[in-house]
Amino acid sequence: MNGFTNTIPDASVRRFSLYLRYLEDFERSGVRSVASDRLARRGGTTAAQVRKDLSYLGSFGKRGLGYSVEELTRVLRSVLGLDSEWRVALLGAGRIGTALFRYQPFRDRGFHITTVIDNDPCKVGTPLGDVVIRGEDELECALRDDRTDLVIVAVPAGVAQSLVDRVVAAGVRAVLNYAPTQLRLPDDVALRNVSMLVELQSLSYSLARRRP
Amino acid sequence: MNGFTNTIPDASVRRFSLYLRYLEDFERSGVRSVASDRLARRGGTTAAQVRKDLSYLGSFGKRGLGYSVEELTRVLRSVLGLDSEWRVALLGAGRIGTALFRYQPFRDRGFHITTVIDNDPCKVGTPLGDVVIRGEDELECALRDDRTDLVIVAVPAGVAQSLVDRVVAAGVRAVLNYAPTQLRLPDDVALRNVSMLVELQSLSYSLARRRP
Repeated sequence: MNGFTNTIPDASVRRFSLYLRYLEDFERSGVRSVASDRLARRGGTTAAQVRKDLSYLGSFGKRGLGYSVEELTRVLRSVLGLDSEWRVALLGAGRIGTALFRYQPFRDRGFHITTVIDNDPCKVGTPLGDVVIRGEDELECALRDDRTDLVIVAVPAGVAQSLVDRVVAAGVRAVLNYAPTQLRLPDDVALRNVSMLVELQSLSYSLARRRP
Repeated sequence: MNGFTNTIPDASVRRFSLYLRYLEDFERSGVRSVASDRLARRGGTTAAQVRKDLSYLGSFGKRGLGYSVEELTRVLRSVLGLDSEWRVALLGAGRIGTALFRYQPFRDRGFHITTVIDNDPCKVGTPLGDVVIRGEDELECALRDDRTDLVIVAVPAGVAQSLVDRVVAAGVRAVLNYAPTQLRLPDDVALRNVSMLVELQSLSYSLARRRP
């Protein structure tokens, strides 16, 4: 497949991740097939939505028998790119960056952080797990030498854009942004922003409305 | 206001958080008014969507003059419950929990982690910042003594549900879940699940589609 043809809606792709987690739970418990309403219940959506999401992947499931857990797990892993290994560079070895570095589910899914960049001279040259932290001046050569597929940004807001501009110029085409700022990137770079405040503030919204 | 009347769509509430961040940037740069298309550009949405989202809050903006940055900032802070202080309990003082504990933007927004619970006997009784870590057996009395509004869950998947059942029984009505599992909660408890894998896997989906 050529180019950047995202014909599956982003919301469906996000739900694929949730379905996959449940399917893996089912697989571990020995469940062989699962109905759309059961997947829906665990995913907080409707059976119709589950069927629509999965219809993007071709035809699955037999009426009355549900989906094969094994087959659907395999297809979802493939669609989500999880039968590949991905080489990841982490920008920023602060508290958030370090927690992400050590987050075991990333490794279990085939995301390997092979490069860590930080601008703190006291950190450069020291190890983080099995990786030696490198300075910002080494960014381009590190990305090239490590054949980086994907960058995780965990630096302060003020320096994120200029670093990511260099990442994009070096040819990386996927960015996961934890910095609390909106990044501007070319259309052919896939970008996901994680705002740790959005979820918390949607809870305080709910709580504020409940107050007498 | 009584009960749990969420008449504003969840997606709009989430965008309120993004708009607020941009508005605060504008305020710091001395910008006095902002048009919907400029807010839209920074929020990755459309001007029509911005106007629709903000219409839930009453009537703002003058044709041709845009929204008052100061007024809109004030209203969004109020709607999101950010002119209150919120008392937060953190369940789990592992790497993710500790990073969340020290995450300064939470504190700046009025979310104060006043209780930390962990089941590791070596951690119980030791300080994390200005809080002393307490054991799981103290959960109910800690939530009561600290008048906890909101709980952040950062424990392993296997123990999350049973802990959260106790949190709900103790009267807490808002849960932010970082554990990689789907929690089942009563309808009157506000729940947000943060899956750190969802965003990363939507990037690997994009990358996998680009491969020749």
